[in-house]
Amino acid sequence: MRVPLELRRAYKLLNHGPTTLVTSAAQGRTNVMAAAWAMPLDFEPPKVAVVIAEGTFTRELVDASGELTLCVPTRAQLEQVYAVGSESGRDEDKWARYGLKPVPASRVQAPLVEGCVGWLECRVLPEPEVQRKYDLFVVEVVAAWVEDSVWKDGGWDFPEDSLRSVHHMAGGVFFTTGERVQVQKPRKG
Amino acid sequence: MRVPLELRRAYKLLNHGPTTLVTSAAQGRTNVMAAAWAMPLDFEPPKVAVVIAEGTFTRELVDASGELTLCVPTRAQLEQVYAVGSESGRDEDKWARYGLKPVPASRVQAPLVEGCVGWLECRVLPEPEVQRKYDLFVVEVVAAWVEDSVWKDGGWDFPEDSLRSVHHMAGGVFFTTGERVQVQKPRKG
Repeated sequence: MRVPLELRRAYKLLNHGPTTLVTSAAQGRTNVMAAAWAMPLDFEPPKVAVVIAEGTFTRELVDASGELTLCVPTRAQLEQVYAVGSESGRDEDKWARYGLKPVPASRVQAPLVEGCVGWLECRVLPEPEVQRKYDLFVVEVVAAWVEDSVWKDGGWDFPEDSLRSVHHMAGGVFFTTGERVQVQKPRKG
Repeated sequence: MRVPLELRRAYKLLNHGPTTLVTSAAQGRTNVMAAAWAMPLDFEPPKVAVVIAEGTFTRELVDASGELTLCVPTRAQLEQVYAVGSESGRDEDKWARYGLKPVPASRVQAPLVEGCVGWLECRVLPEPEVQRKYDLFVVEVVAAWVEDSVWKDGGWDFPEDSLRSVHHMAGGVFFTTGERVQVQKPRKG
């Protein structure tokens, strides 16, 4: 079940570096693409840095709306993640083509992707220079959600492989998020 | 064995979102810290975005030198990664304290960390405004290295758990890089 996550914990969704799905909406159209180049930038209010290449349909919708969502997909969605990261939604609805279902977000027009395990609703902060030079967007997280079956004691804990988040390397080679290891704080000498 | 990696492939070291070790050197002192907030920003020439908090000793050395390295540590180094990410090197040499060994880099003064499986030698690009506002550094990769026992057919392929890269979530909870999955390109309709 999708449950709200306190904003101060939102960074935990991306801290381990998963590949994300970026959704966008403007002027009656929506899109979904994959982005591996996304990372937290601050804790509270939570900010995220994400690269959205110039010329993409997503860039057009984000530029028009100033909003996006970042969703954390699962191993079960791997083929869809790679597909929506490889093709443009400008001429075809990728949601329908690849069987991804948009569900309404709470604070932004861009929809959430059903079946993901984490969701960040984001507003673009005005940084035109880094957008232009590096395709880099700084966004503020205004709402966060997590799938409660993979969230335990305030963090990710994946009970089954199909729900693990994923990490794209290159050319369709992904790694799943692997074994969970708790490391102890170093003892003071 | 550490072998050179072509710069156009350097993004692959960080594309899957591992936690990194950042090294720095200036005025006869060096430091090593952990950074989970690092990601590729461009392919060629390769650029990386990395957050280096204001007030840290690393920030001081990077500001003074304009250089750093990003190293990809392994599961075998997890306690050291967490330790150097939790303490400052300003008053104590973290290399010696936590048994990490610096080895010379080729193009920058900052050293590489022995026992890691990937290494990026980087020069800071002048972006004072995002440095100030977000502690965000844009760096260009000027040399890249990989441990050849975990690199196969042009990408990561971890033969044993101790050599897997790692992903910090929060509070000392890490995930190892998990199962490798090759996804096929979507067929054109």
